Amino acid sequence: MSRKVEVCLSPRLVDRYDLTNRIVVVTDVLRATSAMVAGLASGVVAIRPVETVEASAALRAHGYLAAAEREGQVVEGFDFGNSPYAFMRPEVQGQKIALTTTNGTRAIALVVNAPLVLIGAFVNLEAIVDFLKNRSEDVLILCSGWKDNFNLEDSLFAGAVVAGLRGPEVHSCDAGLATALLYDQLQHDLFGAIQRSSHYHRLAKMGIEEDIRFCMQRNVFSVVPVLRNGEIVL
Amino acid sequence: MSRKVEVCLSPRLVDRYDLTNRIVVVTDVLRATSAMVAGLASGVVAIRPVETVEASAALRAHGYLAAAEREGQVVEGFDFGNSPYAFMRPEVQGQKIALTTTNGTRAIALVVNAPLVLIGAFVNLEAIVDFLKNRSEDVLILCSGWKDNFNLEDSLFAGAVVAGLRGPEVHSCDAGLATALLYDQLQHDLFGAIQRSSHYHRLAKMGIEEDIRFCMQRNVFSVVPVLRNGEIVL
Repeated sequence: MSRKVEVCLSPRLVDRYDLTNRIVVVTDVLRATSAMVAGLASGVVAIRPVETVEASAALRAHGYLAAAEREGQVVEGFDFGNSPYAFMRPEVQGQKIALTTTNGTRAIALVVNAPLVLIGAFVNLEAIVDFLKNRSEDVLILCSGWKDNFNLEDSLFAGAVVAGLRGPEVHSCDAGLATALLYDQLQHDLFGAIQRSSHYHRLAKMGIEEDIRFCMQRNVFSVVPVLRNGEIVL
Repeated sequence: MSRKVEVCLSPRLVDRYDLTNRIVVVTDVLRATSAMVAGLASGVVAIRPVETVEASAALRAHGYLAAAEREGQVVEGFDFGNSPYAFMRPEVQGQKIALTTTNGTRAIALVVNAPLVLIGAFVNLEAIVDFLKNRSEDVLILCSGWKDNFNLEDSLFAGAVVAGLRGPEVHSCDAGLATALLYDQLQHDLFGAIQRSSHYHRLAKMGIEEDIRFCMQRNVFSVVPVLRNGEIVL
């Protein structure tokens, strides 16, 4: 039995892949999928990813807390954006959250028709790898990137998953091969590596270095969030 | 003076970059740009990249030798495709060649409006780096990839150029950072690295391992081909 484990480095390239019978892992390490994992592991009931700020606000009328991030900032008029700490506050436990972000929620929208969509980040890396080891379907790891561009943090996470699944029966595309090699090289100091990335500089200016530090930790949570009927749940 | 040296990992993403005042280096290591460099260094007068097989054939009437490659193979009815050895034969010296390929000539067509387009491959790596060191414009290295997907060989070449230009005044995007780190890791055995890539398996089945070995050599030629009036010349 041979199994494909591939990596899509930009949402713009996702139409290159046949998603039939695939498990898709969507990642947006800084910070959407890290926040989703943290939230659901901390008692949030469901997170509904939406593409526009208006759609997030409109869901308040249906009992959701509304969150929105653009360009790394909380959108005016919203209580929170995509900081993982905001998703772990006691006030959000037992609640449903509507969320729109610059990259991550857009990437999720592109793969809603895949048979199974998982939400991954470094904070639940091992749980994702273990889940995939117990399945046999082909895998696509979709990096949300930054406005369709390659980014380092999502690619490193993708490489970590590929590295975790490596074996004689697994073959990967060149992007899987390259990101796994990159992860091999940088895994002993992920935070150091990410300090050299463009997004780090973008976010650090906004004073959210603590968020970045949080998101670059591995295996803080053992949950595997899945997309079901348009909502991310456990 | 700060200078941007960026890497575009797929032709599909090239519209993300402002090409005004940029030097663009197009690469298609296996095999189009390696063949172009080899040919021009060996006495070919000019190479006209065209997008279709028909356009290549039609240029015969204007005194060009016609070359065409699709899916790694010479197209039926053409004397040669994109093997670098074909571009170094005595019969092509002093001639002009029209060439269409699966990826490389398409990538060149996307950047014809940039002020300066260079043709790069491992076989002229040092010449490209030295040329760029003597200029001050921002740089974009465009990887031709494989049908819009990331590929290892073009990314490694891009990383080699970024690594060659590294310095306190140069900053790169995440793709530049990642490919340079990958080149650092794999540079001591480029051919070994490429044997793990998807395109190697695709081409090796066609019995052109010698071509691949040739293309993974560094600094065989010291020429820097440029695009001028739709033709690649020295």
